[in-house]
Amino acid sequence: MDTRTAPARLRIARLREVMAANQVDAVLVPSSDPHLSEYLPGRWQGREWFSGFSGSMGTLVVTIGEAALFADSRYWTQAETELQGSGIALVRIPTSAATHHVDWIAEHVKKGQALAVDGQVLGLAAAQQLRAMCERAGIRLLTDADLLEAAWAERPGLPTGTVYEHAAPQAAVGRPAKLALLREAMARLGATHHFVSTVDDIAWITNLRGADVEYNPVFLAHLLLSHHDATLFVGAGKLDDSLAAKLAAEGIALADYGQAPAALGALGPGARLLLDPKRVTLGLREAAPGNLTVIEAINPSTLMKSRKTAAEAAFIRQAMEEDGAAMCAFYAWLEPALARGERITELTIDEKLSAERAQRRGFVGLSFPTIAGFNANGAMPHYRATPEHHAVIEGDGLLLIDSGAQYTGGTTDITRVWPVGTPSDEQKRDYTLVLKGTMQLSRARFPRGTLSPMLDALARAPLWAESLEYGHGTGHGVGYFLNVHEGPQSISKAVPDTTMAMEPGMITSIEPGLYKPGRWGVRIENLVLNVPAPSSEFGEFLEFETLTLCPIDTRCLDFSILRADEIDWLNRYHAMVRERLAPQLSGDALAWLNTRTEPVPAA
Amino acid sequence: MDTRTAPARLRIARLREVMAANQVDAVLVPSSDPHLSEYLPGRWQGREWFSGFSGSMGTLVVTIGEAALFADSRYWTQAETELQGSGIALVRIPTSAATHHVDWIAEHVKKGQALAVDGQVLGLAAAQQLRAMCERAGIRLLTDADLLEAAWAERPGLPTGTVYEHAAPQAAVGRPAKLALLREAMARLGATHHFVSTVDDIAWITNLRGADVEYNPVFLAHLLLSHHDATLFVGAGKLDDSLAAKLAAEGIALADYGQAPAALGALGPGARLLLDPKRVTLGLREAAPGNLTVIEAINPSTLMKSRKTAAEAAFIRQAMEEDGAAMCAFYAWLEPALARGERITELTIDEKLSAERAQRRGFVGLSFPTIAGFNANGAMPHYRATPEHHAVIEGDGLLLIDSGAQYTGGTTDITRVWPVGTPSDEQKRDYTLVLKGTMQLSRARFPRGTLSPMLDALARAPLWAESLEYGHGTGHGVGYFLNVHEGPQSISKAVPDTTMAMEPGMITSIEPGLYKPGRWGVRIENLVLNVPAPSSEFGEFLEFETLTLCPIDTRCLDFSILRADEIDWLNRYHAMVRERLAPQLSGDALAWLNTRTEPVPAA
Repeated sequence: MDTRTAPARLRIARLREVMAANQVDAVLVPSSDPHLSEYLPGRWQGREWFSGFSGSMGTLVVTIGEAALFADSRYWTQAETELQGSGIALVRIPTSAATHHVDWIAEHVKKGQALAVDGQVLGLAAAQQLRAMCERAGIRLLTDADLLEAAWAERPGLPTGTVYEHAAPQAAVGRPAKLALLREAMARLGATHHFVSTVDDIAWITNLRGADVEYNPVFLAHLLLSHHDATLFVGAGKLDDSLAAKLAAEGIALADYGQAPAALGALGPGARLLLDPKRVTLGLREAAPGNLTVIEAINPSTLMKSRKTAAEAAFIRQAMEEDGAAMCAFYAWLEPALARGERITELTIDEKLSAERAQRRGFVGLSFPTIAGFNANGAMPHYRATPEHHAVIEGDGLLLIDSGAQYTGGTTDITRVWPVGTPSDEQKRDYTLVLKGTMQLSRARFPRGTLSPMLDALARAPLWAESLEYGHGTGHGVGYFLNVHEGPQSISKAVPDTTMAMEPGMITSIEPGLYKPGRWGVRIENLVLNVPAPSSEFGEFLEFETLTLCPIDTRCLDFSILRADEIDWLNRYHAMVRERLAPQLSGDALAWLNTRTEPVPAA
Repeated sequence: MDTRTAPARLRIARLREVMAANQVDAVLVPSSDPHLSEYLPGRWQGREWFSGFSGSMGTLVVTIGEAALFADSRYWTQAETELQGSGIALVRIPTSAATHHVDWIAEHVKKGQALAVDGQVLGLAAAQQLRAMCERAGIRLLTDADLLEAAWAERPGLPTGTVYEHAAPQAAVGRPAKLALLREAMARLGATHHFVSTVDDIAWITNLRGADVEYNPVFLAHLLLSHHDATLFVGAGKLDDSLAAKLAAEGIALADYGQAPAALGALGPGARLLLDPKRVTLGLREAAPGNLTVIEAINPSTLMKSRKTAAEAAFIRQAMEEDGAAMCAFYAWLEPALARGERITELTIDEKLSAERAQRRGFVGLSFPTIAGFNANGAMPHYRATPEHHAVIEGDGLLLIDSGAQYTGGTTDITRVWPVGTPSDEQKRDYTLVLKGTMQLSRARFPRGTLSPMLDALARAPLWAESLEYGHGTGHGVGYFLNVHEGPQSISKAVPDTTMAMEPGMITSIEPGLYKPGRWGVRIENLVLNVPAPSSEFGEFLEFETLTLCPIDTRCLDFSILRADEIDWLNRYHAMVRERLAPQLSGDALAWLNTRTEPVPAA
């Protein structure tokens, strides 16, 4: 037996014992927590603990006789490796087919059998789908038990990270002003109360930050708002007294984290509760009285925080200069070190780059785990080097580095690809086609209110023209000293809805890619800000201000497929990068910046 | 009182008498018929008859005290004019807000009051929305009465156009083969029966054509299919005996048009009926027994007929040559006639162009009313010249002609814009920007299965870049000697669903535009066929074969904004047009073709 995967086999067996004791025939273990977060505290990483699959997305279903792990193409290679010997079957699902496991359950669980899932971590929308399937299939759905608890002896407790203030001037809008905006939105929607579970919404509303999960400066909490009161449900002792007093003075009372369901349950029958059905769990929804009027809409704060203010944008531009300066210092070390033949691995890159960032003004931490992938490793969009498995940077090839940081004045996320040794013609062509996609979307102008997924094809078209494609989205929203992934906008093949409209102040990544499995990967990513473009009789228009400041390698360019207008864009971008970053740099880093921002000749 | 609109006032008054007699407080008059067709037989043009508004889309709601007509921006100017003096208010709705009237009813009809709508012409999906609103608002919904009948003395009867055969070789797939394909689809979906109401689906399945509405060669019918039987419900006497016998021999029995509800009602409780909820009315749905199992899915024939076979594509290419030859002959007359100072109006253009088409091999009729709009009239995308209101072609400006025809080997739809006198710099710029959009989408390659709306931005981007926009979709599917508008694909801002995936053999229009109200309009439209492009490790790809053959005017080009690759595309298109059309032409028409397909100099 493979000793590395033996734990999963034993843990699944233990889970089946608990199932039997509870007369349950199947258990669904989603990748989610009571706040429906993207990154989960250890307590809710049960899917990983029981299956051994460590990818960031995936769903586990265990029946008496079978176990299946559902993952999309980004994770297939990783899941195949990690599931070996576990007895768990990998079910390969299309990207965005997030409910494939529901159909699987309908086929594999018999009529009259019982399916258990913890309602405390099940989104309302997901619960409705699951319930509809169970009704059709005659399966009994149990949502009031957490079977993992009994089967998982070493389960971590609630995270206890300290909560601190995101202070002015970087916190550019005060708490009272934000509460007033939310109450206006509640009034427009006819709500007397509003309940928020999403931790990034709560961090934004309260100008507080925490450390309950890695990379995202958030803390576990719920928030209940009326037109007169606001109660923050948060772990006892996570805020110090002076911060608690400040919050109280600004109209936010504290209550213990576990009291949120009771507070919902105490709402009177006249209450009209505003809830985001995609952002509240079944468990919390069911805590509210049955006779309550529920108004379903996207959390108003989700829309508000996506639209950065002018003051926030100004701090973000500063953070980009800090981040770009760290990149230059890092590359100014990397290139000669490689030339000297120093032994540098993907892990060294993470260490050195993170160390450069840590010296910059306003740095708080990384915004996600650095992806440094050389050649074949760069072909895995979600690759992460580990002490056990990583590559040495040597020979010829492409080095992909996707990294970012949290600053008090903004969140960064940048991908660059650099030649090591001599890149091949095919590598240059792939690199240039991806860059054409990044440029074509970066240069786009579009009507205000355009549904963001409608822009996706603009980045893909140059790759499509050569029968090439990438399996991930083109761009995600980015928070302000908050989660590096935030909605509502998304430049992707997502089915658009009206909440995804492009509005001024939104920050989004543009990151087309191209992956040749086992060979190399290319991705070139900048963050862009929606800014007003000239309006006309046809309405308001927006365009992108590229925020990210870092040279884009020109040694990998295939000039035969670049147009004059594209070279012009690249040279203008480099002139801006040089102008903005030079004042931050000196010595080798400045010299490197000047070399790498040299204009390339017009076509 | 405006005598032209007096009828509407009297007719609404008469309708209110009937409402009072039936104790109904509000009536909804949609633009639809029992087949949910785009073009309506006179019998179901009640919205136009009662309101006076002659646009092709719009909804009328009449209460005891108010009357409102809901139309989108394409129709506002026309509706304002036609509703004058009618007492009917125009409610301006956003394009694609097709259910705005539902909210209006909720606000204007009181709790406990009764709303009537004829369930025989109400789509199932629309009925569900209406019913949900009425339940929320406490409005009684009556769907089993047709109040128009009593209020509309001169109402036309059922259309009686002859039904004829679409014969081989143009009908490239026989009826037995099509029935077999449908039965395979039924089996896949687990259906014992399938009911089809959409007249284009029925025409395609049966290889029959009719003349019950203008422009679309369809006939009113329903079709009920089991694995052994097929019954076509069609007006008595519309098919001659020999055709009826031929159908019978191929497994299709005839029954009277009015018998369809009874046949549905006679289905046994074990029946599993496949229905397309967007393509069947409430009245017919309710005719089926309540205990029946209904399987909801898009009509399989809708998907099948969208994918033209290789044999059909070959006939379409021939039809395009015929159509292009007619265009050349027409323009070869128009240009010198204008130069000679002949008095030519928008109506003359329709007559002359239609006469040229009528001479071509396989011509059956026009596929939609010709839009010939000079200058300001060209700025109205749905303009139609009338004997009372039309322009003379004189002075300087742009002439927009959007026209098409039905041939036994295909359906055409083409828009061209021609300079009259000397076009201005602004006109040239507008023309060139629109052409850039047509070209950018025409040249696109994309993964097979791409949801068609995701391609929309490619055509708009060149206009967006100058803060310009158009209010209509970029492209619609086109039938094969069938409706000029057919689904499921649509290159537009429609919310995509999986039925809209691009597949080989689909024919779609590409027709970006730009409209300067009161000044001029530009639209450049070709039909394109989805053909395989080279596949790769990233999957199958498609690209467009441009089917439409007709010069694109080069005198209106603004060369300062054209790239070399765009000029190259245009010259290659013109070379193909010349090569394909020259054999069809002689004399002046050939000379005109050669002049208008001259290559333009590279940038």
